Amino acid sequence: MACEGAPEVRIGRKPVMNYVLAILTTLMEQGVDKVVVKARGRNINKAVDAVEIVRNRFAKNIKIESVEIGSHEITVTDPNTGQQRTRRVSSIDICLAKEA
Amino acid sequence: MACEGAPEVRIGRKPVMNYVLAILTTLMEQGVDKVVVKARGRNINKAVDAVEIVRNRFAKNIKIESVEIGSHEITVTDPNTGQQRTRRVSSIDICLAKEA
Repeated sequence: MACEGAPEVRIGRKPVMNYVLAILTTLMEQGVDKVVVKARGRNINKAVDAVEIVRNRFAKNIKIESVEIGSHEITVTDPNTGQQRTRRVSSIDICLAKEA
Repeated sequence: MACEGAPEVRIGRKPVMNYVLAILTTLMEQGVDKVVVKARGRNINKAVDAVEIVRNRFAKNIKIESVEIGSHEITVTDPNTGQQRTRRVSSIDICLAKEA
């Protein structure tokens, strides 16, 4: 993967602007020229939103180096029967890089 | 773009399995070896889900050729004031190809 070893911002349930800020501050740290934005399931569209807001509104010199999608198997316990099942969850990894 | 001219499947509000079927039937048409899956806004995670279900469950010989994310400006009319405003909407284009 292109973004190997880069610091990551993981998208969760908070408002999208929190993650926009996290991406921007990570990219401003010394010695950092790449960041990978990761999300799963329903947070995938928030990841795309955060990246697009960063690029369009704040840091026009940030380019998308790669976008990868994939799946993870997660184990969930059924609250009624107590049985364990595996579920497939989609994921996205977006690698951002500062333009030279 | 890698998938130029390929038939497209546009992800909307229907259940994800409808789009899985649409992707599979499009790829089975004669002379088709690529398909581009497009979605906007909150349908982005459904697009990723549909592609992952196709690849993991049905057609393991389909590979992801490219994933692109971007933004579109859309004009919305405020239902209360009747004023027109532009809004940014994120989008994703996933290009799928049959493996030789």
